Amino acid sequence: MTTAVSPSVSPLALPLPEMPPIAGAECASVAAGIRYKSREDMTVFRFAAGTTVAGVFTMNKCPGAPVDWCRASLKGGKARALVVNAGNSNVFTGRAGRETCERTAAETARLVGCKPKEVFIASTGVIGERLPTDVLLAALPGAVDRLEADAWQGAAKAIMTTDTFPKGATRTARIGEATVTICGIAKGSGMIAPDMATMLSFIATDAKIPAAVLQKLLSKGSAKSFNCVTVDSDTSTSDTVLLFATGQAKHPRVPNDPAPTLLKDFARALDEVLHELALMVARDGEGAQKLVTIDVTGAVSAKSAHRIAMAIANSPLVKTAIAGEDANWGRIVMAVGKAGEPADRDKLSVAVGGTWMAREGGVIPGYDEAPVVAHMKGRDIQITVDIGLGRGKARVWTCDLTHGYIDINGSYRS
Amino acid sequence: MTTAVSPSVSPLALPLPEMPPIAGAECASVAAGIRYKSREDMTVFRFAAGTTVAGVFTMNKCPGAPVDWCRASLKGGKARALVVNAGNSNVFTGRAGRETCERTAAETARLVGCKPKEVFIASTGVIGERLPTDVLLAALPGAVDRLEADAWQGAAKAIMTTDTFPKGATRTARIGEATVTICGIAKGSGMIAPDMATMLSFIATDAKIPAAVLQKLLSKGSAKSFNCVTVDSDTSTSDTVLLFATGQAKHPRVPNDPAPTLLKDFARALDEVLHELALMVARDGEGAQKLVTIDVTGAVSAKSAHRIAMAIANSPLVKTAIAGEDANWGRIVMAVGKAGEPADRDKLSVAVGGTWMAREGGVIPGYDEAPVVAHMKGRDIQITVDIGLGRGKARVWTCDLTHGYIDINGSYRS
Repeated sequence: MTTAVSPSVSPLALPLPEMPPIAGAECASVAAGIRYKSREDMTVFRFAAGTTVAGVFTMNKCPGAPVDWCRASLKGGKARALVVNAGNSNVFTGRAGRETCERTAAETARLVGCKPKEVFIASTGVIGERLPTDVLLAALPGAVDRLEADAWQGAAKAIMTTDTFPKGATRTARIGEATVTICGIAKGSGMIAPDMATMLSFIATDAKIPAAVLQKLLSKGSAKSFNCVTVDSDTSTSDTVLLFATGQAKHPRVPNDPAPTLLKDFARALDEVLHELALMVARDGEGAQKLVTIDVTGAVSAKSAHRIAMAIANSPLVKTAIAGEDANWGRIVMAVGKAGEPADRDKLSVAVGGTWMAREGGVIPGYDEAPVVAHMKGRDIQITVDIGLGRGKARVWTCDLTHGYIDINGSYRS
Repeated sequence: MTTAVSPSVSPLALPLPEMPPIAGAECASVAAGIRYKSREDMTVFRFAAGTTVAGVFTMNKCPGAPVDWCRASLKGGKARALVVNAGNSNVFTGRAGRETCERTAAETARLVGCKPKEVFIASTGVIGERLPTDVLLAALPGAVDRLEADAWQGAAKAIMTTDTFPKGATRTARIGEATVTICGIAKGSGMIAPDMATMLSFIATDAKIPAAVLQKLLSKGSAKSFNCVTVDSDTSTSDTVLLFATGQAKHPRVPNDPAPTLLKDFARALDEVLHELALMVARDGEGAQKLVTIDVTGAVSAKSAHRIAMAIANSPLVKTAIAGEDANWGRIVMAVGKAGEPADRDKLSVAVGGTWMAREGGVIPGYDEAPVVAHMKGRDIQITVDIGLGRGKARVWTCDLTHGYIDINGSYRS
């Protein structure tokens, strides 16, 4: 969330895939100069008439003005444009913040030829500073002039703040006999926490899916992906995931209450895109050196397993131990116990990298430390905890807590 | 919680006060060699016959064997001895851990001349390693031989693990016309979090107070002190606060249902001791460079205010900003919003060091930054948040999150 110069690229970075154009979706990124100098910091998308939209947003009680705007616009279920800026989040900016959204939507609607409520807006960056609306508006016509179908790569970069690498994912899926394409981009590195989406993610598909159906698919997919990722337990005020369906592909009509089989493959592909993007956010966690996967089994319910997994993933002591390459399972036990969920110390088992170190309440005498030590030196860390009480399970992802996190977040804003 | 060599003394350290003997309480500290070499690591207290006891313990669902032991013993309300060791927490040690407690209590009871259930036990240090019971038992007779009334200073040091300074507090109070004395010591630096006490704290008084009354006073006092301190949000498996009343002072009899006025001054003095000890724990937070006091007012209830204050105190982004001497009130707003408690962004006000920076949902244009910048450079940081919804208020304490925390907790256990 700071505007400090990004450190070197995360060692967990993945390359941006080649992302094909989505029929009915065009975009352009420009250097609006809202905060950053000499880099593209504003992205505009234009969608074909008939595009439906779904969204999930931060659960933070102090959301930014753009989140309020999107929540209200989402009720219509239709989208024709999206405006994203990086560097200023337009959060805690009072009436001025609302006016920025209103004016941005009005001007974009005029340029694109749609209603203001068909324009979606997302902003990330510094909290509490007025967004210079005139600067943003002045950059809009130039962006609209440059709209093109094949501009995902630039958009993935333009929406970054403390991110160290651009994040994108793509899949194809079959609906009936037709093939549809899904492309998505995301940004996020710090202020990433449970009970919400991520910082920002935008996904587009050429499929033709009613907004209500799209929303169900997105909500379900986000619960298994973005809501299972945490970097620092701090739930952002701007988290926004928007999914646009342009309806340009030719496939059997998707009714409001489709047969389960019709969208099965689309849901699979969408889930994979959401999963890939969410993990990229963990991979780019501020200061991250290791990606951590936490599996909890044997909890009394899936919800309970998720809470326990998140307690482990958010524990500073667990995360610093991982940074130090120490398989400190005692801290994992502590985190299980602090989650407040049903747990019985004497039924608890813990494995790291697939090696069981503690079983049913005590260390396993003489367990082989060598594979554990080797595992902890790697980039991908696997923690497995069996609660021993029921059949509830969950998987979440996080990163380690390193000096890099302190460096990035302990610097002055300016 | 690691056994790494303690870094230099916290810049927030306070000197250990002179602590007078408590009639009916003797103690001794010895180098038992349980884990640390060449330092005292075990402390034994002996209490006069008739000593009553109260206790509060960790809410972690995976407590250590000593916590289970104390909880069970507390039902009797009587105490004759306390054995504390540093370096091994006897947590997640299964049947062996329970046997350690049983044998320690039996041997101490034999040496002191009491029942095993009148012996209290506390251990802190590494989780999941068997405590070498024979080593502990071998050191007990020597400790009992050296018991003396004036040994608080040594005890405050012997119970330390990653602490960088010993912690103690003392007060006198009037009960009727008599003066009674309260002395307490504490340890704690990491794995310090809400919903519990602290790592370890032991308080003794020569007052004669029934156990049930003592328990009420301790529970009430802990809620306002230890339970309002957080270092890293990680609730320890060993947190224990025990209050012993030796009954040696001559004062009006305290019935089981005393008049409110009778113990008013005693409660005041006890609260001050608890408060002082709790703040010392925050002052010795792992890596702490600044002590942070967070006041929340205007919440819908005191409980809600406490939760909001704790969300701010546990936010890594708020804590790293403070380490960087950045009055980043945007992150404070984020933390208020993520607490999940009723909050209305447009009624929220934030002050740092007494200077209001944001009021009713927006930054105060042209507020004077100079005093805020000066305040952030100091050791004592004051954050005030008014929620603007009701009359609930709370105050909690924490420390900043620095490279020192990563250094201390990112090292190998051995």
